[in-house]
Amino acid sequence: MDKRPIGVFDSGFGGLTVLSELVSVFPHEDFIYFGDTLRVPYGNKSAQEIIEYSSQISGWLVQQDVKAIVVACNTASCIALPSLKNEFSLKFFGMIDAGVQSVMQYQDLVGKDISRLGIIGTRNTILSRAHENALRTSGFLGEIYPVACPLFVPIIEEGVMDTYVWKSVINYYLSQMRDIGVSELLLSCTHYPILSENLSEYFEGKPQILNPNFMLTQEVSRFLIDENLVGRSDKSGQIRLCITGSIDSFRNFYHRFFDLPAIDIEIIVLRELESQI
Amino acid sequence: MDKRPIGVFDSGFGGLTVLSELVSVFPHEDFIYFGDTLRVPYGNKSAQEIIEYSSQISGWLVQQDVKAIVVACNTASCIALPSLKNEFSLKFFGMIDAGVQSVMQYQDLVGKDISRLGIIGTRNTILSRAHENALRTSGFLGEIYPVACPLFVPIIEEGVMDTYVWKSVINYYLSQMRDIGVSELLLSCTHYPILSENLSEYFEGKPQILNPNFMLTQEVSRFLIDENLVGRSDKSGQIRLCITGSIDSFRNFYHRFFDLPAIDIEIIVLRELESQI
Repeated sequence: MDKRPIGVFDSGFGGLTVLSELVSVFPHEDFIYFGDTLRVPYGNKSAQEIIEYSSQISGWLVQQDVKAIVVACNTASCIALPSLKNEFSLKFFGMIDAGVQSVMQYQDLVGKDISRLGIIGTRNTILSRAHENALRTSGFLGEIYPVACPLFVPIIEEGVMDTYVWKSVINYYLSQMRDIGVSELLLSCTHYPILSENLSEYFEGKPQILNPNFMLTQEVSRFLIDENLVGRSDKSGQIRLCITGSIDSFRNFYHRFFDLPAIDIEIIVLRELESQI
Repeated sequence: MDKRPIGVFDSGFGGLTVLSELVSVFPHEDFIYFGDTLRVPYGNKSAQEIIEYSSQISGWLVQQDVKAIVVACNTASCIALPSLKNEFSLKFFGMIDAGVQSVMQYQDLVGKDISRLGIIGTRNTILSRAHENALRTSGFLGEIYPVACPLFVPIIEEGVMDTYVWKSVINYYLSQMRDIGVSELLLSCTHYPILSENLSEYFEGKPQILNPNFMLTQEVSRFLIDENLVGRSDKSGQIRLCITGSIDSFRNFYHRFFDLPAIDIEIIVLRELESQI
């Protein structure tokens, strides 16, 4: 039994899709969600910057006495996770492992190998080839079609998914993938679960969409049980939302997309983060 | 004669369109360009945040001993300029005044009133109604059609202006304006001059596009002459480029869009800015 909260961080609000999944599976755990909304997006930052920001945020979360940290951002996971694991003695969970495990477990579940796997994410995530490398290491044998879709996040943030702008953008990025006919599609940006239905519609139900959030939550669950770190079991857990700026935008997204309780949002000044390193 | 540099700041790289115009007119002046690339875009920040960041940057520029400051960002100009003028004794130039003067002078030049004026900018700029209010105060009598185009900047940053994604986005925002048939179109985001040709093509040559950068440069020129603050006249001026982060992206934009000398880019840490206020 361990009542300490679980830390979850992202460059912005995309990681709320992960928090949402975690809260539904662990209704009695406490969470601290940290969105680096002032410096979002990480997609166009250098590797050095992403490593530095992730380290600052993790340091701050450690100071809040979290029992584990979920890096709920694919870009930070593929670029910063190795150095975070080196720097801190805490347990970290990342989106790349969760994505790869989703693919491998899916193959086991359906009892056959995936022949053509699509992967979509931000430019930094796709350029890193983190998923491809980890999939090959795990023994994945199928063909892989990675595509960077950098306008998907602005499209979500502008809320124009129901317009022909979205149709044009998805067609621009994914028409080739549709023509090739991938059989499974791995969502490798934590914003993208918001687009699940739109993606399904575009692909007319194929490919099967794989959302790593479920597998990530499974991994967290296994860890908490194995290490005897499960928290409260008598009452609802608390969520603490901390961001670095743009409070109005964040509040809008939080209420527009997530069925989470309405709670206060704290602003963390960058100085407080910088003093951690 | 005053050899001090002129300060130019923007939330990111859009203000380089202004710097570029200034450098071509004042080849012997020194400039310090400050891009707040870590906290860009300002379009989704609160008014309080925009005022705070603009004040930090202006304080830093004052510390660099600039002789005047150009707020080369429409969002910062319409939200923060009044408080900057209160806070600092230095001369400030903003994009709203330059836009309004462009409209009024254009009317004088062509010898007739504009009947239907389109205005395009970021959401914050358009919602502020700064241009409309200032135009009415200046005696502008025509109809005004303001449209926020928040996806234009991501489109520029992704470099997809030559694709059908651009056609779909411009149509989404501006088809109504095209149908109405505005006669002049004021660019009210410093990124947008990069889109001038694409806009002309979409509107098939009408409306006349008004770019405030020319008028802003005229205002700076008049000020330097009137106040006897013209700088060096013997050799080329120096440009100092300072940003808060994302150096690779900034360097790419600088070289992709601007015919300016290749020079070093300095990173200014936010701590240095915060200590100004």
